[in-house]
Order: sequence, then C-alpha cells, then structure tokens
Amino acid sequence: MAQHDLGPGRLEAFSDGVIAIIVTIMVLELKLPEHVGEKGLVHGLLLPLTPKLVSYAMSFLVVAIMWVNHHALMATVRRATRTILWQNNHLLFWMSLIPFATGFLGENPRLPDAYAVYGFVLAASAGAFTLLRWHASTQGRDSPELSKVHRAVLGKSLLGTLLYAAAVPLAYVSIFASIAIFVAIPVMFFLPVFVGPATVNAD
Amino acid sequence: MAQHDLGPGRLEAFSDGVIAIIVTIMVLELKLPEHVGEKGLVHGLLLPLTPKLVSYAMSFLVVAIMWVNHHALMATVRRATRTILWQNNHLLFWMSLIPFATGFLGENPRLPDAYAVYGFVLAASAGAFTLLRWHASTQGRDSPELSKVHRAVLGKSLLGTLLYAAAVPLAYVSIFASIAIFVAIPVMFFLPVFVGPATVNAD
Amino acid sequence: MAQHDLGPGRLEAFSDGVIAIIVTIMVLELKLPEHVGEKGLVHGLLLPLTPKLVSYAMSFLVVAIMWVNHHALMATVRRATRTILWQNNHLLFWMSLIPFATGFLGENPRLPDAYAVYGFVLAASAGAFTLLRWHASTQGRDSPELSKVHRAVLGKSLLGTLLYAAAVPLAYVSIFASIAIFVAIPVMFFLPVFVGPATVNAD
Amino acid sequence: MAQHDLGPGRLEAFSDGVIAIIVTIMVLELKLPEHVGEKGLVHGLLLPLTPKLVSYAMSFLVVAIMWVNHHALMATVRRATRTILWQNNHLLFWMSLIPFATGFLGENPRLPDAYAVYGFVLAASAGAFTLLRWHASTQGRDSPELSKVHRAVLGKSLLGTLLYAAAVPLAYVSIFASIAIFVAIPVMFFLPVFVGPATVNAD
Repeated sequence: MAQHDLGPGRLEAFSDGVIAIIVTIMVLELKLPEHVGEKGLVHGLLLPLTPKLVSYAMSFLVVAIMWVNHHALMATVRRATRTILWQNNHLLFWMSLIPFATGFLGENPRLPDAYAVYGFVLAASAGAFTLLRWHASTQGRDSPELSKVHRAVLGKSLLGTLLYAAAVPLAYVSIFASIAIFVAIPVMFFLPVFVGPATVNAD
Repeated sequence: MAQHDLGPGRLEAFSDGVIAIIVTIMVLELKLPEHVGEKGLVHGLLLPLTPKLVSYAMSFLVVAIMWVNHHALMATVRRATRTILWQNNHLLFWMSLIPFATGFLGENPRLPDAYAVYGFVLAASAGAFTLLRWHASTQGRDSPELSKVHRAVLGKSLLGTLLYAAAVPLAYVSIFASIAIFVAIPVMFFLPVFVGPATVNAD
Repeated sequence: MAQHDLGPGRLEAFSDGVIAIIVTIMVLELKLPEHVGEKGLVHGLLLPLTPKLVSYAMSFLVVAIMWVNHHALMATVRRATRTILWQNNHLLFWMSLIPFATGFLGENPRLPDAYAVYGFVLAASAGAFTLLRWHASTQGRDSPELSKVHRAVLGKSLLGTLLYAAAVPLAYVSIFASIAIFVAIPVMFFLPVFVGPATVNAD
Repeated sequence: MAQHDLGPGRLEAFSDGVIAIIVTIMVLELKLPEHVGEKGLVHGLLLPLTPKLVSYAMSFLVVAIMWVNHHALMATVRRATRTILWQNNHLLFWMSLIPFATGFLGENPRLPDAYAVYGFVLAASAGAFTLLRWHASTQGRDSPELSKVHRAVLGKSLLGTLLYAAAVPLAYVSIFASIAIFVAIPVMFFLPVFVGPATVNAD
C-alpha cells in the first residue's frame, strides 16, 4: 500500500479528477439561449452558440492533448517527489483557468482582449507543463531512450509555450493571427504527443 | 507501475471522472422554481419540473448505459493505444454535450428544435462509441468468443446511432416520433449491454 | 487487468466520483448574499444562510453515511454483476437528486412541500440502497458471519426507508415531525454503519 | 480485492474526488464580467477580477497544501478504520466550504466580515486536519521515526489552526492583519509539508 502511495498513482488520480472537471465545467458556459422558439433554430440557437461551441471544442482538444501528454509523462515517472507534486499542482492551477478564458472568448469572439487572455492562460499552462516535463525528465536520465523522447517533446513544449505567449500581443494586431496560432499548436502537438507514449509503450 | 499505466487503468479513471460529472451536472439544470409557496406543490414545483425531470432521467439512463458498455468494453482492452485514447476523448467530447442538450429539451418540451438537438448529440455520442468499440474489437481478434460478442454489440451500436440520427429530421414531422426513438433505444440496448460483460465475465 | 475490471473496483471509482460531486455541488446552492456590507454579518450573511447551511450539513452527513455504507458493502462484493451495476446506478440516480432537494429545503425552510420533497428523495435513495444491499448480500451467503451482518444492516436500511417515506405526509401535519425523522435516522444509522465494516474488517 | 478495500485506497479516491472538485468549482466564482469591450481590458476585466483571482490563487494554494499533506498522511495509514473515515469526512465537510468563503472574500475584498468568514472556515478545516493527523498518528506508534514526523507536523497543524482562528477577530481590527496570517501560514507550512512525505519516502 505504502509503496503504491509513493508511486505516481495518487498524483494521477488527483490530476485526472481536476482535468475531468476542467473539461466538463466548460460545458456550463454553454448557457441555454432564451426564446429559441420565436427566433428559430438558426438565429435562436446555432448563431449565438457557434462561437461558444468552437472555443469549447478548441479548449477540449487542448486539455485532452495535455491529459494524453500527462498520461504519457507520468508513465515514465517512478516516484512522486515533492517537486513533481508541486510542479503538477502548478500545472493544474493554470489549467483550471482555461474554462474561464474559454468562456470569455466564447462570449466575446470579436474582442482582442479575449484572445490575449486565452493566449496568456494557455501559455502559462503550456509553460507549467514544460517545467513539469523538464523536471520529470531528470528522473529518466538512466534510460537513454527515454531521455531522447523527453528531449524531443521538451522542444515542442517550449515552442508551444512561446507561440501561445506570442498570441497575446498578436491579438491586438489581428485576432486571426492568434486564431492561427491556437489552431496550429494542437496540429503541431498531435503527432509528438504519441512519440512519447508510443516509445514508452515500445519498451 | 509503468505496466499499470500502459493498461487501460488511467483511461478508465479519466472516463469515469468525466462521465460521473456529466451525469451529475445535469442535475444543476433542475433550477429551483420561485414562489413555490404561493403556487403550491403541484403548480409551483411538479408541473414546471416534470419535463426537466423526465429528460434528466432519460439522459441519466442513456449515460449509465454508455458507462456500463464502456466498463464492459474496456475489460476487453489490453493496451491503451494512442488510437483508443483519442477515440475515447472523441466519445467524451460528444457525451459532454449531453447535459446541454438535456437542459435545452427540459426547457423546451414542445419545441421540435430541442428534440433535433438532443437526437443529434446522442447520435454523435453513439457514433463515437461505435467507432471506439469497432477499434477496440480489432484488439480482441485473437479471441473468437470475444469477436463474436463485439460483432453482436457493434450491430446494435450502429443501429442505435442511425436511429438517433433519424430522430433529428423526424422531430420536425412529429416530436412523438423522436420520443418513441429516445425510449426505444435504451430498451433495445438494455439486454445486449449485458451480453457483453456477461460473456466477458464468463471466460 | 481483466480480473481487476471484473471486481467492484471500477464500480467503486465511478460511485466515488458521483458521490464526491453530489456532496460538493450542494455547496453551490450556498449562493453569495448581496449587500452584506450594508446589512452586517448577522442580518446580511448568517441569518439568510443558516437554513441553507443546516440543510447542507444534514445532507452532507446523510451522503457521507451512504458513502461509508457503500464502502463497507462493496468490500463484501466479489464480482460486479449486471444486477449490481444497475442497482448501483439506480441508487446514484436518486442520490443525484439530493442536492436539488437540499437546495429547495434551504430556500424554503418553512414550506411543508420542501420537507415532503426532501423526505421523498431520501426515502427513494435509502430504498435503492436497501435493494442494492439485499442483492449484494445474496453474494455473501456462503459466509455465515457476513450474512448475519447483512441481515442486521438490512433491517436498519428498511426501517430508515420507511421513516423517510413517513416524513413525506408528516410534513403537512408538522414540519417538526419531519425534522425529527431527518435527525433521528443519521443517529440511528451511525452505529450500525460501523457494525458492517467493523465485522468485515474483523475477518 | 477485499484486502485492498480495507486499505486507505478508496478513502483516498473519494477524498481526491472531493478535493479536486473543491479546487475546480472555485473557478466558477470567476464570473465573466459584462461589457469588457466598452470598458477595456484593465477597467473591464483586470481590476474587477483581481481580488477574485488573488483569493482564488490563495485558496488553491491552501487546498493544494492540504492535499499534499493528506497524500503524505495517508501513506502512513495502514487501515481505514471507522474513526479515520469519519475524521476524513469531517475534514472534507469544512474544506467543502472553502469555495464559498473564497467567493465571498473575492466579492467583498474590503469587508472585514469576509476575512472573518474566510478565517473561520480555514481554521475549522485546519482543525479537522489536525484531528485526523492526531488520530492517524496513533496508528504509526510502532515506528519511532514516523512518530517523530507526526509530532513535528502536528505542532505546525495546531499552530496553523490557532493562527487562522486568530484571523477571525483580527479582521475587525485590521484586514491586513488577517491577510498577513493568510499569507504566512502557507509559507510556514510549505517546508514541513515535505518533511512528512520526504521522511516517509526515505524508509
């Protein structure tokens, strides 16, 4: 039992709980529109909901990618050290602000501020994840194959963090520049995400 | 530990968390009616709440069936591959919209649009589940008995998906046609749900 | 892994998730009062919140007792059969209405209807738990000691169910009769709750 | 399986669920401000949100410290006795009020009552945790090293409880005295938190 508790088991359970709630409470931002009956499906429901649904789907994808990355990263962690516990709490703090940033963006799809806030929260989350991965990677030093994986994914993590950070000022130049970044990063991450677990699964 | 992490254990934990929250936040749609004291129990509480309670109970049953199916399906999965992780995330995305569709239906029990939206979300969820089951079934190929189960349940999954999809246009013909479908599918699924785990439990 | 999945492990994980959310979303009913500054702590905060806090504490205790009972009961279950899965889902459905009934009671502490609704939801939850326990007890038949425990606790479960049911009509005679029942049942359950796990722990 | 259920495993799972929700629903208090477009980022978003964000971050840190402490404490517990189950439920009850107290403080950053309520809820949570730790420590008596850890951390727990309690009356003298306490306790706890698991990890 004790041995189990010193493994990353409970850290994963807690993170899964927080991430599951983060993913799900974003749906609460999809407030029910009023008077759909009079306005009809398109003007009463679809048009007002579209920006909310798009930002929800985008955030769901980002959080799901982070969870898959977390899943792959923790599979390489042998002990939940104090540093890993707090790096993880730090990550969960920034991720817990994603529903707020998502709701704000869904409510104000034409407001540069909303894209700046969204970019800032995602940059902070990606940065916290990079820190966690960097620290966790120091545990896997003895396995050269694992180190290769970590180095590869760390590069992408850092790049993603910087791109999200760039989306903050860019939002005031053109919201479409920020949108391009928000769309590009999941695409960029999608494959590398699997390099991690795939290689890990391999050994 | 690592071995454990490569099993479907954490995928189940995350799915259980998301499904548990999906089931529970639907209750938040049961807003407290005002002035029940003046209007009395029947007109102040029961009449306004009935459509909400009925749509909540219906969705609770659908989500519970999906959870039981998920439970039975994952018991046959040996490794959480990248494809299974993402098929599962895709399923959770559509399921996460069920509370919204349920609340919209509970608020507008006479509006065809509400039945169309509800049918669409359930069709997408059932379709995502069918994809996940189809992919997972390719892992069980080596066990002929398991394959037989998967083929049997896959047929029902596909049928349920098509029926929910049919409920979308039918809602504009008559909401009662959609209601008939929403009632028929849980009934239809109820037994097969148990064919799965039962057979699995058997070996 | 498969063996693990056929045990009650995942049923417990899902139940823990749902019960954890049930317990926690009741807190969302503790809406923040307005203008506390002008009205002062007592009239602005404490007086309006007291009925909400009392009904929250009462429901928290009831749900916690049910969780402890569930914990003790599942420790005696060897396999998550289809019947146990659905008896458990049935229990979770009624328990998921406790936050609504609690909020309604907290909003209307002088309304007999609120006590009737609260009594009805708790009677249904206790009844569902009695059914689950009765079915689970049939699995433990081979252990005479376990059967003795189940019989003892089943009696209390049934009594609690009937008392909660009695609180529904009694609310219209006097809300204090219902309050007496709501206070008496946790007291009555408190010791037996531990007979269960205690005896189970013993062997 | 049964053996597993008698361990602290499920108590941890339930506590993780409740704590994960407590942490996450605090974010729901970060209501979206209106008319940010007209008012601009600073006056429309940042200024109104700052007190809410600060109190959220402070509470997130407190709950995260409690979770890390809980994680370390439970790693020393061998059996989930009835007393530990109820000491834990008692802790979760008080912790479940933290989101309410946090929201109230975020809404009323100049109101002494808000600091008094926040101090009271945290004092009660810290007191419940002290009780749980004190009881759990009686299980570890046979390990002198563990007892030394428990005694060290128990002292800090008690001190934290008393300081939070002192913040209640001090709020009416000066809210800055309460703020000083709210900031000092996490700082004070931060290192000892790790004495616990560190020492535990050591053996």
